[in-house]
Formats: sequence, structure tokens, C-alpha cells
Amino acid sequence: MKVHNFFAGPAILPQEVLVEASSSALRYQNGLSLMEMSHRSKPIADVFEEAESLIAELLGIGDEHKVLFLTGGASSQFYMIPMNILGADQTAGYIDTGTWSTKAIKEAKLFGKVEVLASSKDKNFTYIPKDYLIPDHLRYLHITSNNTIVGTQMSKFDKVNVPLVCDMSSDIFSRAFDASQFDVIYAGAQKNLGPSGVTLAIVKKDVVGKMERDIPTMLNYETHIKKDSMFNTPPTFPVYVCLLTLRWLKANGGVAGMEKRNQAKADLLYGEIDRNPLFYGTTAVEDRSKMNVCFLLNDDQHNDAFLAMATEANCVGIKGHRSVGGFRASTYNAMDINSVQVLVDVMKRFEEKYG
Amino acid sequence: MKVHNFFAGPAILPQEVLVEASSSALRYQNGLSLMEMSHRSKPIADVFEEAESLIAELLGIGDEHKVLFLTGGASSQFYMIPMNILGADQTAGYIDTGTWSTKAIKEAKLFGKVEVLASSKDKNFTYIPKDYLIPDHLRYLHITSNNTIVGTQMSKFDKVNVPLVCDMSSDIFSRAFDASQFDVIYAGAQKNLGPSGVTLAIVKKDVVGKMERDIPTMLNYETHIKKDSMFNTPPTFPVYVCLLTLRWLKANGGVAGMEKRNQAKADLLYGEIDRNPLFYGTTAVEDRSKMNVCFLLNDDQHNDAFLAMATEANCVGIKGHRSVGGFRASTYNAMDINSVQVLVDVMKRFEEKYG
Repeated sequence: MKVHNFFAGPAILPQEVLVEASSSALRYQNGLSLMEMSHRSKPIADVFEEAESLIAELLGIGDEHKVLFLTGGASSQFYMIPMNILGADQTAGYIDTGTWSTKAIKEAKLFGKVEVLASSKDKNFTYIPKDYLIPDHLRYLHITSNNTIVGTQMSKFDKVNVPLVCDMSSDIFSRAFDASQFDVIYAGAQKNLGPSGVTLAIVKKDVVGKMERDIPTMLNYETHIKKDSMFNTPPTFPVYVCLLTLRWLKANGGVAGMEKRNQAKADLLYGEIDRNPLFYGTTAVEDRSKMNVCFLLNDDQHNDAFLAMATEANCVGIKGHRSVGGFRASTYNAMDINSVQVLVDVMKRFEEKYG
Repeated sequence: MKVHNFFAGPAILPQEVLVEASSSALRYQNGLSLMEMSHRSKPIADVFEEAESLIAELLGIGDEHKVLFLTGGASSQFYMIPMNILGADQTAGYIDTGTWSTKAIKEAKLFGKVEVLASSKDKNFTYIPKDYLIPDHLRYLHITSNNTIVGTQMSKFDKVNVPLVCDMSSDIFSRAFDASQFDVIYAGAQKNLGPSGVTLAIVKKDVVGKMERDIPTMLNYETHIKKDSMFNTPPTFPVYVCLLTLRWLKANGGVAGMEKRNQAKADLLYGEIDRNPLFYGTTAVEDRSKMNVCFLLNDDQHNDAFLAMATEANCVGIKGHRSVGGFRASTYNAMDINSVQVLVDVMKRFEEKYG
């Protein structure tokens, strides 16, 4: 019986990706497992080259940017970005939209000046701040495109007067956007791109190599740009699974195809949340995430009953983040709308029983 | 036809590990791929807990040390160690035994004072320096137990008068040793422990949290000790494959069993190198690595012919590192002695033809 995987990350991957990853874990080229092959061998070099060029193609990235496969998660980019591009006397602007941006702000303060231009902390991060002023003197403006915990998302990226840096961990490849105005785009792979263990960083080439501070070799973007993410032994199998996912993405309409697919799933699930008198959404309607749909029961004494009913229908991972409670259904690229329909049907049956 | 995998890393893994990893990449518990499961779910938490406790058991580590699963490779430990435990006014001693220790020395200088107590650079790192003085004032002494590129190995760890820090990337779990005198033991996983993408660090708990410098959250050992390697999303699948390898290790006699197995393979291969008049070993006999067996042809015009003959016998990965040339046969734990015999047979046939 099919399992409907609503985990927030590590998260659902396309079935055909899993089949091929499983096969290559046992036998790839030359009769060896992909995991047993030197990162300097041609088959693995080919994996990295194709993954890099597919990302550039899917996002419409040109020669000004370099695609890097790093490790340490988005959490490591929180400090690597200011370490590499924020001088001690320079100022970075941050928009505080939740747990992840709060952590990014903390790390940036170790390296330069930080101005928090806007925050939605006053309402537990349930909306995206708008209409803030962006001073011209900022080295960069840091934003977090999607908040996995509360379920908010920036619906678009406005053209701004300073370079942008964006944590897109949970919504990269879920929609079309213009990458050209970003100095750095970064994302942990474990939502729309692949399994955990690899971190994507897309870095504008002309912003690196200008710091006077001492940067450890492995933390300098320049090191990885020069060596095409192969300065040291990279996480070969996770990058390979990313490649398989990127191929699937391309074959399924690219980011435009994903945007359409994700919009349909969001419409279906938010539609039921708004219609069903037993549930309500927790975020500002215009800032609702199309990746992480968070909702509550009006009567939270029935939480366990709803969870049990969802579990019986083979829906897993819908418990809300421990810091906010309630429910969260993550509906990343790989999720089919039929799985969302199964959850919606559970909500309808729940209404019949408890309404 | 069986492939004999002599790659230096990523390297050979036990066949039963690959079979189980392949199966779990498709379906693990709950009908989901292991790669699709939240790191906060019980099955993944169980993987980390068992892997940590198996490492402690296999190495005989007690409560004074903590086993961590990190990322960024041994190359990232080169700077993380001095960042975490070497004060700006303190001095660390380093033994320079090749490319990896040279890199470690470079990073340490960013954080404190470094004294290179001994070096084998005068002979291209083909031996392990001995009989050097270790000043009492050292914060720690850093050693590299095995040099993958040239093929030298420290045959044992002498008791010394200062805390030890050791890069064991290429020979951890290959033999028995006393872990108690080490402040930090670290290793990229991709030799004897698992696939690339995870870095093992074994840290003495009482050495952390004492620095006055600002350390980014993700680079502070304390962060990962407190959160049992789950502060952020860890590389779940690579750690799982490590767990499978650790189970295999335990079932095959633990580190004592591996030591015996590796000694037999080394005896066989070095025996042929010493017997066969066409080949010679490149390192001091007493410092020969049991993990990476490096050798040359007396007549290097026949290099391609030997490589072709080895390739025909399904031996892969025996080309020497680009910086030293010749041949390198890596014979990590998972390699069966029969594969070494196949290579030895090729050397004998080569002698018949070209001798």
C-alpha cells in the first residue's frame, strides 16, 4: 500500500529516482557500486558535471554564477556567507521571518554589522514583512524564501537596490524566478533537490576573493569554485541522487512545470482547510507556503484522533514542528496531487465523524 | 565477473553492506526509502544511536569521549581542531608526514602557534620520522597515522607526554589501538568506515568549551556534542551505510579481526613486490602502509602494459596518485585476500612476459 510522505525534510523523492539510486548503490559502471568509486574517476566526474550544468539550465544561470556542491547544510552557509563576503566594517540587512533567519542573523554578527530591516516575530512569524526600507549602503540583503516551521513563503522576489542573498533550502526548484540579482543562493538538498548530506550554493563569481580576513581553506568559496566542488572528497552518492532528481525535474517540465504542479496541490489542500469548519490555517493567506502547509484543529483535544486517522490512511510526517504544534503537510515537488487528495479525504472523513 | 577494487577512496565496501544499502535506498521501514525519512523520526534516530555506540564499542571508547558524525571531510577538521582547542597563545606540535599533515599545519597556523617537530619531506615523505623531542608545553601533538599518497603508516602510537590529535582517515578500524590518550581522533568515512559524505570525529569532552574566540555555531564541537550530531540535518544515508559497515566489522572480528586480515594481505602483496625483480617498493620497509601499498616498475616504460594487464584481470584503481606516479593498491578492510592474490598473479604473469 502506497505511503504518502509529508515529511518536512529529509523528504519525499520521486519513485523513479529511488529505483535508480537503489540500483546504482549496488552496481553502477564497471560493476562497482557508485559509493565505491573514486571521486577522481570519470563516472563520478561526469555525475558532478551533469548535475552542475542541469542546475544552471533549470534556473537559467549564466557564467557570472558558479554552482557548488558543499556540505554542512544551510546552517553552515549562515556563517560562510558573511565570512566570505561581509567585511568587518560593512553592513548586511536581514529580514527576520523565523527560526532560520534568526540563526543566520546570529552567525552574521560574528563577521560584520547587521541591520534587521523587518521582522514578523511580533506575530510568531506567521506573515512575511513587506514595505520595509532597504538602505543603499548594505553589502547585501539576506532573505529566507520559505519558512518550513510556520509555513510562510515569499510569493515573489522584488527587484531591490542591493545584492540579494537567499536561503532557498525549502523551495528552490519549486517555481520560476530570476537568479541574476542574487550574490548567493543556498539550499540544503533534502527538500526538492535530493537526500540530506549535500548543500547547494550558487555564488556570483565576482564577489569572492575580496576579503582581507583569514579564511580556512575549506570555508573559502574560492577553493571550491577553482576545483569544481572537488577540492576534497565530496559526498558522491548524495550528489548522484541530486542528479537523478534534477533529470526527473527536467523531464517533468522544469521549474515552470513544478510551479504549476505545486500550485494545484496548494489550492487543493488550503481549499479544504478553508472550507472544513474543524480546521484553520495558521499563516497570513497571502504568505501561505506552497511547500509546507500548516494548520490546526479548532479543538486541539482531537489532535491525536486526527493523527490516528491520517496514519491509518498511510499519511506520514504530518505532525507539526515541535515548536508550533498542530499539523504540517509538506508537499514538495515529488509529491503527487493524489497524495494530497488522500489527506484531504481524511480531513473530510474527520469532519463527518467529529463535526 | 568480480571486480577487484583497489581505489584509495571512496573505496571498496563489503558486498553485504552494498546489498542492504541498496535495498534500504528503495524501501526501509514504513515502506519509505531511508533517504526520504525525517532525521527526527525514530528509525533514523536509532541508526545514529547504534552507529555511535558500535564505534565506541569497537574502539573501546569510554564516557570521556564523544563520537560525532560531521561533514566537510578530514580537510574540515584541519581547521576545526585548532579553532576549538588551540588558543591564540598556545602551541601545537605537528609531525609532517605528507600532503595531509602539510595541509593540517597550514590551517592550524590561522589559530595559534605551530611547531613542526619532525618532517620526512627531505625524502618525499617515504618514511615516518622517529625519535623527535616533544616539548611539554604543547597544547597537543598532531599526527597523521597513514599517508594514502605515498603509502606510509605509523606502526604504533607511543605513549607521549602531551595530548594527541590524530588524522586516522585512512586506517581507522584497521587495527587495535588505545584511544584513551587522544584529545581528537578524526577520519573521513570513505576508506574503512563507509561512503563519502560523513566525517567521524571522536572528541574528548573536557577539551571543548574553553576557547575565548568566537566560533560559528556549526563549527563548535560543543554544538554537536550537545545535540548528538543532530543539531542540523545530518547526512542520513551515508551514516546509515557506515552503520552497516560497522555491523559487518563487528561480525568479522572487530578491529583485532581486521588487523589480522590486513596483515595477511600486506604480507602477500609486499612479499611479491620484494620477490619480483621487476618491481620495487617506494617507502621505508618498517613504515610500509597496510592500507595503501605503493610500488614502481624498475622500467617505467612498461607502466601502461602493466596497467593494461591488471585491468584485463578486473583490477581497478591501481594507478598511483598523480603526484607520485607508479602504482598504488589500496587494500582496506573490506578487501578480500583473494583480490590481492589476483593482483599478485598479474605481477607474476607480468614477470614471465617482461622479465
